[in-house]
Amino acid sequence: MKILLIGAHGTIGSAIDEELAPRHEIVRIGRTSGDLHVDISDSVSIRKLFEQTGRFDALVCAAGNVKFAALADLTEADFAVGLQDKLMGQVNLVRIGSEYANDSASFTLTSGILSHDPIRFGASASLVNGALDSFVKAAAIELPRGQRINSVSPTVLVEAMDGYAPYFRGFKPVPAVDVALAYAKSVEGLQTGQTYRVG
Amino acid sequence: MKILLIGAHGTIGSAIDEELAPRHEIVRIGRTSGDLHVDISDSVSIRKLFEQTGRFDALVCAAGNVKFAALADLTEADFAVGLQDKLMGQVNLVRIGSEYANDSASFTLTSGILSHDPIRFGASASLVNGALDSFVKAAAIELPRGQRINSVSPTVLVEAMDGYAPYFRGFKPVPAVDVALAYAKSVEGLQTGQTYRVG
Repeated sequence: MKILLIGAHGTIGSAIDEELAPRHEIVRIGRTSGDLHVDISDSVSIRKLFEQTGRFDALVCAAGNVKFAALADLTEADFAVGLQDKLMGQVNLVRIGSEYANDSASFTLTSGILSHDPIRFGASASLVNGALDSFVKAAAIELPRGQRINSVSPTVLVEAMDGYAPYFRGFKPVPAVDVALAYAKSVEGLQTGQTYRVG
Repeated sequence: MKILLIGAHGTIGSAIDEELAPRHEIVRIGRTSGDLHVDISDSVSIRKLFEQTGRFDALVCAAGNVKFAALADLTEADFAVGLQDKLMGQVNLVRIGSEYANDSASFTLTSGILSHDPIRFGASASLVNGALDSFVKAAAIELPRGQRINSVSPTVLVEAMDGYAPYFRGFKPVPAVDVALAYAKSVEGLQTGQTYRVG
């Protein structure tokens, strides 16, 4: 399969790359690194990306920014970051990418545990993750030509605990290599409309 | 209790009014009708509303617009309607309203069944409803001064079936009077961070 991997050089992206590269052709895409570049918060940039990639069999997105701050301090502009980047960035990858994707192609998005297991400072992330998991359920029944869509909803990563531990006390972190398996299940399996929770 | 009821003249709003008015003081609020007016898609209008209402014990929102269209036809601007109105409108009512709300005040938002039971044309509504239910979980743990927050997630209404039946084949509609009970449970009970599914 020809797989577009967005966020290829992040912690999760690198693990997905290692998991899938032995069996597939990976196009590595990042905001500033990788074979090709995209700013997912900008739908013009997204369309330009697909003009460069041409047809593909799977798109995996392991990228997306959200602002973390106390609920009382989160401004409208802070919420807008998550809405425009992690949420609509991934929605637009599907919306626009569907035109360029082959029959039976799959889309795999990244949400996260905060949709249902919230933490201090995480209200915007919770909102975005919940939106993504519900969008995936809905888009799955409308995508054309046998195209599929799932989301992966990981807990905090072992590799991120250096910085994140104070915010995720009591959460059992998972290694990125375990999270990567869920992307393989989505890409190489046949399910659609699913959210794979890891951790 | 002094209850701010936004969307007071809608089908659900009217039923909430009938349920709560015998026991509480209701301030009826609408975009163009009611005691006071607000455009929830505009945070300036929201702050102006609270300057008029003063302190309150409960806010109930039964308002919010979302665009319905085929996934392939939903534009970025179409998604923006739901994000700005039903989603961020309700988030901003909480974010800004929390400052004006009394200790132990409650916020009750409206999401909907499409978060987990999607229909054709409903991808934007699914996304928004999922975002709201997750936001409620997250905001519940951060709201100050004992303030609470829940969402009500109704299925299609009996009263709406004239227009909506073709889109909700196989869904068992519920009367608005039953949906109104969930708002009473949220306002007059003590739970927080809950989504009450009706239907």
